[in-house]
Amino acid sequence: MKKIKIGAVGLGRLGRQHAKNIAFRIPNAELLAVCSINQEEVDEVQKNWGIEYGYTDYNEMLRNKALDAIFISSPSALHCQQISDALEAGFHVFSEKPLGTTLEECKLAEAAVEKHQDKVFMLGFMRRYDPSYAYAKKKIETGKIGRPILFRGYSQDPEHAIEGAIKYADHSGGQFIDMAVHDIDLARWLLDSEAESIYAIGGCYAHPEFGQYDDGDNVSALMQFKNGTMAFLFAGRTAPHGYNVETEIIGTKGILRIATVPQKNLVEILDEHGVRKECSQDFLERFDQAYVEEVQEFVNCIIENRKPAVTVYDGTKSTIIAYAATEAFKENKLVRL
Amino acid sequence: MKKIKIGAVGLGRLGRQHAKNIAFRIPNAELLAVCSINQEEVDEVQKNWGIEYGYTDYNEMLRNKALDAIFISSPSALHCQQISDALEAGFHVFSEKPLGTTLEECKLAEAAVEKHQDKVFMLGFMRRYDPSYAYAKKKIETGKIGRPILFRGYSQDPEHAIEGAIKYADHSGGQFIDMAVHDIDLARWLLDSEAESIYAIGGCYAHPEFGQYDDGDNVSALMQFKNGTMAFLFAGRTAPHGYNVETEIIGTKGILRIATVPQKNLVEILDEHGVRKECSQDFLERFDQAYVEEVQEFVNCIIENRKPAVTVYDGTKSTIIAYAATEAFKENKLVRL
Amino acid sequence: MKKIKIGAVGLGRLGRQHAKNIAFRIPNAELLAVCSINQEEVDEVQKNWGIEYGYTDYNEMLRNKALDAIFISSPSALHCQQISDALEAGFHVFSEKPLGTTLEECKLAEAAVEKHQDKVFMLGFMRRYDPSYAYAKKKIETGKIGRPILFRGYSQDPEHAIEGAIKYADHSGGQFIDMAVHDIDLARWLLDSEAESIYAIGGCYAHPEFGQYDDGDNVSALMQFKNGTMAFLFAGRTAPHGYNVETEIIGTKGILRIATVPQKNLVEILDEHGVRKECSQDFLERFDQAYVEEVQEFVNCIIENRKPAVTVYDGTKSTIIAYAATEAFKENKLVRL
Amino acid sequence: MKKIKIGAVGLGRLGRQHAKNIAFRIPNAELLAVCSINQEEVDEVQKNWGIEYGYTDYNEMLRNKALDAIFISSPSALHCQQISDALEAGFHVFSEKPLGTTLEECKLAEAAVEKHQDKVFMLGFMRRYDPSYAYAKKKIETGKIGRPILFRGYSQDPEHAIEGAIKYADHSGGQFIDMAVHDIDLARWLLDSEAESIYAIGGCYAHPEFGQYDDGDNVSALMQFKNGTMAFLFAGRTAPHGYNVETEIIGTKGILRIATVPQKNLVEILDEHGVRKECSQDFLERFDQAYVEEVQEFVNCIIENRKPAVTVYDGTKSTIIAYAATEAFKENKLVRL
Ligand SMILES: NC(=O)c1ccc[n+]([C@@H]2O[C@H](COP(=O)([O-])OP(=O)(O)OC[C@H]3O[C@@H](n4cnc5c(N)ncnc54)[C@H](O)[C@@H]3O)[C@@H](O)[C@H]2O)c1
Ligand SMILES: NC(=O)c1ccc[n+]([C@@H]2O[C@H](COP(=O)([O-])OP(=O)(O)OC[C@H]3O[C@@H](n4cnc5c(N)ncnc54)[C@H](O)[C@@H]3O)[C@@H](O)[C@H]2O)c1
Ligand SMILES: NC(=O)c1ccc[n+]([C@@H]2O[C@H](COP(=O)([O-])OP(=O)(O)OC[C@H]3O[C@@H](n4cnc5c(N)ncnc54)[C@H](O)[C@@H]3O)[C@@H](O)[C@H]2O)c1
Ligand SMILES: NC(=O)c1ccc[n+]([C@@H]2O[C@H](COP(=O)([O-])OP(=O)(O)OC[C@H]3O[C@@H](n4cnc5c(N)ncnc54)[C@H](O)[C@@H]3O)[C@@H](O)[C@H]2O)c1
Repeated sequence: MKKIKIGAVGLGRLGRQHAKNIAFRIPNAELLAVCSINQEEVDEVQKNWGIEYGYTDYNEMLRNKALDAIFISSPSALHCQQISDALEAGFHVFSEKPLGTTLEECKLAEAAVEKHQDKVFMLGFMRRYDPSYAYAKKKIETGKIGRPILFRGYSQDPEHAIEGAIKYADHSGGQFIDMAVHDIDLARWLLDSEAESIYAIGGCYAHPEFGQYDDGDNVSALMQFKNGTMAFLFAGRTAPHGYNVETEIIGTKGILRIATVPQKNLVEILDEHGVRKECSQDFLERFDQAYVEEVQEFVNCIIENRKPAVTVYDGTKSTIIAYAATEAFKENKLVRL
Repeated sequence: MKKIKIGAVGLGRLGRQHAKNIAFRIPNAELLAVCSINQEEVDEVQKNWGIEYGYTDYNEMLRNKALDAIFISSPSALHCQQISDALEAGFHVFSEKPLGTTLEECKLAEAAVEKHQDKVFMLGFMRRYDPSYAYAKKKIETGKIGRPILFRGYSQDPEHAIEGAIKYADHSGGQFIDMAVHDIDLARWLLDSEAESIYAIGGCYAHPEFGQYDDGDNVSALMQFKNGTMAFLFAGRTAPHGYNVETEIIGTKGILRIATVPQKNLVEILDEHGVRKECSQDFLERFDQAYVEEVQEFVNCIIENRKPAVTVYDGTKSTIIAYAATEAFKENKLVRL
Repeated sequence: MKKIKIGAVGLGRLGRQHAKNIAFRIPNAELLAVCSINQEEVDEVQKNWGIEYGYTDYNEMLRNKALDAIFISSPSALHCQQISDALEAGFHVFSEKPLGTTLEECKLAEAAVEKHQDKVFMLGFMRRYDPSYAYAKKKIETGKIGRPILFRGYSQDPEHAIEGAIKYADHSGGQFIDMAVHDIDLARWLLDSEAESIYAIGGCYAHPEFGQYDDGDNVSALMQFKNGTMAFLFAGRTAPHGYNVETEIIGTKGILRIATVPQKNLVEILDEHGVRKECSQDFLERFDQAYVEEVQEFVNCIIENRKPAVTVYDGTKSTIIAYAATEAFKENKLVRL
Repeated sequence: MKKIKIGAVGLGRLGRQHAKNIAFRIPNAELLAVCSINQEEVDEVQKNWGIEYGYTDYNEMLRNKALDAIFISSPSALHCQQISDALEAGFHVFSEKPLGTTLEECKLAEAAVEKHQDKVFMLGFMRRYDPSYAYAKKKIETGKIGRPILFRGYSQDPEHAIEGAIKYADHSGGQFIDMAVHDIDLARWLLDSEAESIYAIGGCYAHPEFGQYDDGDNVSALMQFKNGTMAFLFAGRTAPHGYNVETEIIGTKGILRIATVPQKNLVEILDEHGVRKECSQDFLERFDQAYVEEVQEFVNCIIENRKPAVTVYDGTKSTIIAYAATEAFKENKLVRL
């Protein structure tokens, strides 16, 4: 079996999981190299999982011609330059979301992708590859819900992770760019259209710290799309029950709801608290399968010489909308795109 | 509007609620008299709800010719004699379940009912009048689940009511007679057949006190019915989450489940315990509507000169099965009927 | 027992149910008179339920001094004048929602209520009296969800009732005034604040007929309240599964969801469609209990000489917000209050 | 990384999936050889997945000394002899359930395992490795439900698979041996005790064909365990909604329910059928993860030189109970063990 040889950059919260998935859960992939500015991380991963090459310098990794593809899970502000460099160096590229943190960065990535049409580029909107979201998409495409009317997307981090969120707040870009961008991508994908007008509000309901960065701990937005459909987004940092990513698509003939109860598993508990389900506590738990599926799709695209459904433009467009929502929120105004 | 004038005996846990329902929630009924050996109860009810007649002697109440019907919620051992006396005195009669505590008592009631064919007699198997059970019955009758295969019935009292249950244990007749008799009636009604063989087991898992009376705090039984269908019963006193009465009927084409989550209302709570529903805590809460519906049906039967679906024979037959289950449990053997 | 004597005007879809409830389900009330411009309705109700007085002229009913209170379920445009007339004539008054169809009407009603401080006035925001909503309110008041962040309210009529909705569209006032006004009242009540800014969008996704009246068949609004909380409203006419009124309140320590599955009863069905619950099909089914509870509260207020929690100002304020939402929707703009 | 080299026998419905999992989803395993009496299956698997060795003769495969372990998914009647042969040939062995189809076979396997204490032997009771069951077991072990009272286990195949079930009926051993054996293992595991008495009933409710083999299409059993706990089993071939494996453990302080809704994924659908979840349709879909986890555990045990929790005795004991249930069912009697 042909195996795609991958070099992965970024071994943090998510990058480490990606690296592990590439190494062990994608039959036709091989994790040949890892890279992080943190030498310890590189050493540990190499040793534990038997990875041949380790780098602390990204551009050095790009000189390793045994590689077929580069997998980017570094901090968001580095994505676009790293994408461009990797494509220029002749590799297929997967990058975590968001594409970039500014529109200029996104344009840089777009240019590189357009120049290297023979290479596969894919962006990490993994929710599209979650079995439940994929199932919902198919229902919509086959007309099961009629014409879509409204998309509702919630992305809530659990309160117990608030410390990390606060620390990270100054370079997160705000709730819309950091969290709601996934919902923006889902809305565009499921409604099959682009946002036209956005109003956004929110505030610091529990944690004034976010206010320093003109951000809120809970925010929401209402958007009208070009095809007349609507989207309501809610993003928050204080979910009491766990990591809550839920989505609803209301259509004229049917309604789909995905994960309105973010249940950990199929166990139901009956005790002094009533009848209850315990919940997923972070994105690694909730989207475990989606992270595998998206990498599998990336690798399959390379092998089968085709392009993934998520393109570089999905990155730019969702970023533009996230920025517009951020502007609407900061200035409490209606933004038209 | 013609109003049926009712005299109610027994003003305890359930009798008081019945009296209140008759007085205030049945348009075409009037609570004209109440009776209890407890003078205080009689006084209080008369005063609070403006009830004209009060008695501490049941047979005195039967001499009140202004009454149309007698409603019995006295202790189980009194039911059959009171039924017989009331029918003899010319009244329509409603009696709480169980019909009697011995087969002889039941036969006495049967004879009285047969002698007074012009009178309405009804037994308080109120579950049949609960909107959810009535809905399920209709689904079965219209063939929605195909041919019934298995009936599963749980009746669990909440642990927090254990003290009362222990105190009451010596004259309860045991779990099968006191609690599972409702499930036995449901099984007979929904499976449309009679039990043929029974095996029963159980024990004292939390409260050895029940052992004194050869009873268990949790028991179960498996029965085959004459038409080949099966019934599994579970009755317990230690439900951690509330008052749990749930039923399942598995058919060849569909399955119905009633109240597998005994939710208090339509509120769902998401908090540190997960996603949960709080539960009903006693029979008055869970079957509030059913208690009204059954009395309404009793009154309507009198007015419309017809007989209710629950007959005196349902009382005898469910009692026979409950006794057989008790015997099977006590002697750990298979009982054939 | 003292019984409040009530005269009811309007015997249509809702008025007939109210009349029935007053007649038969409110112990301390008596339905003494009914009124409708439709003589047949009056005759039928009088005959079937044995109601003493019948009128086709509202002002004639007001001359009946045997009455204590007037109950208004007439078309919305008549409410305020009828409220004023009834208060002037010395009666306690209950009026269905909305208070009025214009701000001027509302002010007329306010003036009448202020002039007759000794009379009880109550407005029919019955959802507040639904057991589930009342339960949720108590949880919020006792701090169980911390500080409220977001209110989400859906009010969806079933597609199968679309014909009536289309016929009624020209004098409904639009989705926000006709349907979302209940959610607006809930949001004000549960968030304990007033709306400050509103953006609203929507369209005709299935039924272009609503477009004639500048209305949509599905609309939504995002509002910020003065205390910083947020509210998202969705109102529609095309629910595929039934009559769907659901509400969510997200707080910093807990989240409450009410009726996200508008289940008909406690029966769950397992068949070729999966595992499913059948749904309530109209407001009479869903809010049966709430309609009784609100009238009970009205009657109790009269007897106990106190005022209900829902005031005439709740009517005016929810109307103002509903108008602002309508304006935002029609002109696709942000409206500040 | 050290990889355990595995030879797999049986490439049928389940064997093929096991082979695929070993080849691609177990990092530290390698599928070196496959075996089936069906040459085409062997060829196809070798070609598609690049498997080095292929055999149609099991004993030939046992002569391949490059192998570390043998993985058995052949027909049940072959298991014990193949286990014995493989252990004798010096391999670690994994065998699908049931251990054997007669007690003699089981004893043969036991003897072989006892003789080769240095080898890892594991039996395919995969449910124990399903994340939800593993989670439930941990809750029980840490006392979260108090003392177990009752185990309820359902195993229902979907009606749409009935043709295969009927064809297979003559050598399935009957519902208790073929299907309920999983529940028997779960009951033993979760109740931590052995069955003492069994009563079983059932019949052919939809498919008389099973009657030819003295089997039913739906059967149930009630068992008392030595430690006083109870178990109720139900096994059927006519589930209308899908592949339904559900389990409940009622304890004195809590109740756990596993997969009472065998939902396919996290999508909820609201349409003309109500609010519903679509269901898993076969064991491969429902237990996908469990099949991986159990093999992973087998491989880890070999590498870490330790023994799995499922032993050869679990195979014998569950078989004995399944036979006793079959006897109770066939003779409609109470069987004591
Ligand atoms: N798709 C999702 O659901 C999801 C979830 C979490 C994070 N993310 C995205 O993944 C990316 C990484 O997030 P994280 O939470 O893992 O971050 P992290 O801070 O935990 O890890 C960042 C990693 O990048 C390495 N790194 C930093 N600068 C580098 C450089 N110049 N060269 C090489 N390596 C460098 C760090 O040493 C670290 O290993 C972000 O873009 C984030 O938006 C996506
Ligand atoms: N259908 C149900 O769900 C349900 C639920 C609870 C009780 N019950 C049945 O209702 C009956 C009453 O149960 P309860 O829990 O209310 O009992 P309880 O002990 O609380 O009340 C019994 C009442 O009967 C009165 N009483 C006793 N002896 C009397 C006599 N000789 N003459 C007149 N009054 C007498 C007592 O003073 C008291 O008011 C029982 O038969 C019980 O099985 C049925
Ligand atoms: N709270 C709720 O959930 C809810 C639900 C439905 C309706 N409503 C409100 O209830 C009111 C009635 O709605 P409906 O759907 O029952 O309307 P409807 O059109 O079915 O009934 C109106 C009734 O008023 C009578 N009527 C009309 N003009 C009259 C007049 N001049 N004098 C006396 N009677 C007159 C009609 O004959 C009819 O009996 C409306 O204001 C509506 O907004 C509230
Ligand atoms: N754990 C579970 O949930 C589960 C589910 C299904 C099946 N099973 C068990 O798995 C086993 C296989 O079941 P299946 O449904 O895959 O059966 P199957 O009939 O679909 O496949 C049997 C396979 O064994 C091969 N085979 C038959 N005789 C052989 C021989 N002498 N030598 C080598 N190969 C031979 C066949 O060619 C075929 O590839 C059975 O024991 C069954 O009880 C377990």
